[in-house]
Amino acid sequence: MGESHKVVVIGGVACGCKAAARLARLDPAADITIVEQGSVLSYAGCGLPYYIQGKVSELRDLTSTAVGVPRNPNFFRSVKGIRALLNTRAVRIDRDAKTVEVIQLDTGVTDTLHYDQLVLAMGGRSVQLPIEGTRLDYVFGLRELRNASAIRDALASGNIQKAVIVGGGLIGLEMSEALRTRGLDVTVVELMPHVLSGLLDTDMAVLLENYITDQGVRLVCGERVVALQGDSGSVERVVTDKQTLDAQLVLIAVGVRPNAQLAIDAGLEVGPHGGIKVNERMQASDPDIYAGGDCVENRHLVTGDWAYVPLGSTANKHGRVIGTNLAGGDDTFPGIMGTAIVKVFGYNVGRTGLTEQQALEHGYDVVSCVAPGADRPHYYPGARQIIVKLIADKKTRKVLGAQIIGPGDVAKRIDVLTTVLSMGGTLEQVANLDLAYAPPYSEALDNVIHAANVLRNIIDGVAVKVSAAEVMSRIEQGEDFVLLDVRSPQEYEAARIEDPRVRLLPLGKLRGAFDTLPKDKPIIAFCKVSLRGYEAQRILSNAGFTDVSFMEGGVSTWPYGLKTAPAASAAADARGEQA
Amino acid sequence: MGESHKVVVIGGVACGCKAAARLARLDPAADITIVEQGSVLSYAGCGLPYYIQGKVSELRDLTSTAVGVPRNPNFFRSVKGIRALLNTRAVRIDRDAKTVEVIQLDTGVTDTLHYDQLVLAMGGRSVQLPIEGTRLDYVFGLRELRNASAIRDALASGNIQKAVIVGGGLIGLEMSEALRTRGLDVTVVELMPHVLSGLLDTDMAVLLENYITDQGVRLVCGERVVALQGDSGSVERVVTDKQTLDAQLVLIAVGVRPNAQLAIDAGLEVGPHGGIKVNERMQASDPDIYAGGDCVENRHLVTGDWAYVPLGSTANKHGRVIGTNLAGGDDTFPGIMGTAIVKVFGYNVGRTGLTEQQALEHGYDVVSCVAPGADRPHYYPGARQIIVKLIADKKTRKVLGAQIIGPGDVAKRIDVLTTVLSMGGTLEQVANLDLAYAPPYSEALDNVIHAANVLRNIIDGVAVKVSAAEVMSRIEQGEDFVLLDVRSPQEYEAARIEDPRVRLLPLGKLRGAFDTLPKDKPIIAFCKVSLRGYEAQRILSNAGFTDVSFMEGGVSTWPYGLKTAPAASAAADARGEQA
Repeated sequence: MGESHKVVVIGGVACGCKAAARLARLDPAADITIVEQGSVLSYAGCGLPYYIQGKVSELRDLTSTAVGVPRNPNFFRSVKGIRALLNTRAVRIDRDAKTVEVIQLDTGVTDTLHYDQLVLAMGGRSVQLPIEGTRLDYVFGLRELRNASAIRDALASGNIQKAVIVGGGLIGLEMSEALRTRGLDVTVVELMPHVLSGLLDTDMAVLLENYITDQGVRLVCGERVVALQGDSGSVERVVTDKQTLDAQLVLIAVGVRPNAQLAIDAGLEVGPHGGIKVNERMQASDPDIYAGGDCVENRHLVTGDWAYVPLGSTANKHGRVIGTNLAGGDDTFPGIMGTAIVKVFGYNVGRTGLTEQQALEHGYDVVSCVAPGADRPHYYPGARQIIVKLIADKKTRKVLGAQIIGPGDVAKRIDVLTTVLSMGGTLEQVANLDLAYAPPYSEALDNVIHAANVLRNIIDGVAVKVSAAEVMSRIEQGEDFVLLDVRSPQEYEAARIEDPRVRLLPLGKLRGAFDTLPKDKPIIAFCKVSLRGYEAQRILSNAGFTDVSFMEGGVSTWPYGLKTAPAASAAADARGEQA
Repeated sequence: MGESHKVVVIGGVACGCKAAARLARLDPAADITIVEQGSVLSYAGCGLPYYIQGKVSELRDLTSTAVGVPRNPNFFRSVKGIRALLNTRAVRIDRDAKTVEVIQLDTGVTDTLHYDQLVLAMGGRSVQLPIEGTRLDYVFGLRELRNASAIRDALASGNIQKAVIVGGGLIGLEMSEALRTRGLDVTVVELMPHVLSGLLDTDMAVLLENYITDQGVRLVCGERVVALQGDSGSVERVVTDKQTLDAQLVLIAVGVRPNAQLAIDAGLEVGPHGGIKVNERMQASDPDIYAGGDCVENRHLVTGDWAYVPLGSTANKHGRVIGTNLAGGDDTFPGIMGTAIVKVFGYNVGRTGLTEQQALEHGYDVVSCVAPGADRPHYYPGARQIIVKLIADKKTRKVLGAQIIGPGDVAKRIDVLTTVLSMGGTLEQVANLDLAYAPPYSEALDNVIHAANVLRNIIDGVAVKVSAAEVMSRIEQGEDFVLLDVRSPQEYEAARIEDPRVRLLPLGKLRGAFDTLPKDKPIIAFCKVSLRGYEAQRILSNAGFTDVSFMEGGVSTWPYGLKTAPAASAAADARGEQA
């Protein structure tokens, strides 16, 4: 690098600004220019749903530093020593000449910028629906600040009662909360059979969907939106392949793709998802060109496959690595774990690694469990439930992935399991983690330790589980078995599974009631969360019953509806005898 | 193991009950007897401060299962198939005869129990102060339910205004909140120079002490209690080596020691802390005797040394391993990380691994940083500060320990770092963890990632830090340097360090003011949390200033008091010129 080390950065949001700032701190000779086609730099795009919801009151909160300084070109020049060109689009890269052709969008004036090294941080772009009507008024995307402003203005008009969100991914669900909280009638239409497709397994998605529906959001899964219609310029209807939905506002959130055309045109390699291919140093196929953020693909650290998971957290990490390497250092970004978290009303929904389905597809010898539990001791005020699904490989006993949902502290457990995954940890290592214990924070054995122990019991054949879905399938096939509810009569009265196979026999009475249970039928025990169900399975196995299992998750994760009306007194009496 | 596999478990709280229950689930032939000298089984001792505070309303909440079933001998018999003898003390172990002699405390009747295998889970005992007056009325310990009942009764009497807590450890601090919240005038007397001795380094302890003092608790550190006095049978005064404190209630919480005498008398080996020595399978020096919980020592997983850290979480893990092994399995407990967490009023205080001091004593090439920051993006409602101290080894770049305090989400970050420590992770691995990011949960770069990057910068010589303590020491030695406050004038007005060395020069003006700064004096830059202070250090280093550093933590962790009164207008004007 010579006296003046010219670096051009295309894209001024997360990765681009981070790379530029890091380089500026490390290399006094760096002459850095950020080229940004938008009108703002380094905005907090992840905050947009919260601005629409009203939790963030001012848009400028998303474009300022923590102490309220706007992150505008003046800030970048005076604080960082970086030149930033706004409303300027890079239109062509000439790798031989090492130049970038740019155009000022306001004036049409073009310019050619020379670079010694180039950073591509063009971000992602919203997937467009190839249907009629997307240009109607009140049809929005949510990628830029101006989208959020327009939606908030529309809401302020008071003319919007019904909203349809197309897409049940992370943004779609965040926006379902935002718009429902603003008083709208909200429907989410998802093409796939379940929301958060690819992020949650079906069993967990169903539990989340039940919760979202309880919040007054209508979920329409497995339907394709085929047209948006409106007779006077504004959207009025969303037409799917099965029905027509009224809507005065439509938000399209069907995913993000890499904004990599500039790189493709310059002959750089892209991966299977259309993102720029980079090595661990974040160099593209031209070593003088670095790329990061939402326009690149990453290695998935469990499978080694290329993956496209655009996140601000990853973009910032990319930026730092790029900045270091631009300054002559040698830093690497190994890849991602597919971690994601989203707040949906009062539920926290987190996931990392592979789903059970993905693990099966990758050929692992998969074992999983669903373990609900309180996030703190029951006696401590504010203890709330979380449901942990843990996925591991039976042979290596390594953790492969996790999904956790519920009103309790999900983020902590997902972050612990992400860390375990990053280090290739086994269930035994999870079970013995010295996690921080005091009643305000966790049970003596944290939920992830409990889940790891459940999974160890399953692998070792000590615990024999069936899933709620399997129980329902066996009911539907008319199989004859005992569905043994080992909770108390009070719990049974409050909420129970209604099926003739169900028999109430509280755990404390079980050891005295072996004679009343059939030796020739399967017995599936369950309780509220599976602790007593598992205990019952062990008691019956130890007593010589041969076809005994427990239903994992208990009534806490039974997705098919519980009867909550008081049990008919005759039935209660009859069962009381056995209780 | 024969037809009837006789197992005696001495101690029926966490480890003993867990071991017994696990064994009962796994081995139908097990004949299990728990011998407990107290009158309750398996109580939640960690909940006692919250019962005294009133957060837990009923004592029975601490002795029941999550669904309200009392964990009494009837529960253990009917649900677990385990016999439990309460109010029964084990007085002698005969290892040759494989018997335990027990005495019923109510009746004095003795009995001899035969065992094939024995479990020692006698727990810990409170350290007694070797001083006069500890038997006065209203002098309490806090180890058992009856202690908590007695304290709550005393508070209900309305006669207690002043309380002294002897010991500023975890229990002492929890109780300072409990008693202060109940309206008492509370003083904590700690023998060591700082609270949480051995858990926090001095720099972090001082910040916590300032906070606790702000909550209206008086802290008296570095004083030895020499007597408790009272003229009418009840305590009235606490006498230290320096003063006399009025008190109508005294809580002694000066630590816990292993309750291992029974094991010592039976000739079993104990470790340097007086706890029973066990191997990874939790076997004592007699292979038919297992031991776990607060009566044993553990291996510290960073140092390999024996350590004594009695915790309910560890005791439960021990119990499961013991239960598995008693049933013929082969499970191991590798050791502990010294993790601890405590809620003190609105602060969360967590730690794991080694303190900086401990790391130095163990010969590591220690490097550390103190990095304050918000636990969520500044724009998201409810973002709160946490202060991360991260300690690593310069050569291997492995994390050695962490301390985190503040009102924000500490538990998550401590658990992540505990997991990193367990897997021998490096700073580079922490920096690239794919932690769960969305605005309700964290910044795009989580606090632990930020702290790891700060430490990487320090190791690589990019960031040159001085601690607040070092700055104060250099001030006290009369050194001539510039203490460069690069915050805004508004921030300066609100709260500032008062010293003639301080110069206000907002970061945005720094690049234009090189001429106004001395080339021949050290310059120490600082801001609110160190981000701008570090940026200023880089700007000045890049501009050729040779003795530049930043003060880590900024005003957020300056423990020596800030001036919050409006600055004199003349001074503000004078500084305004440079701003």
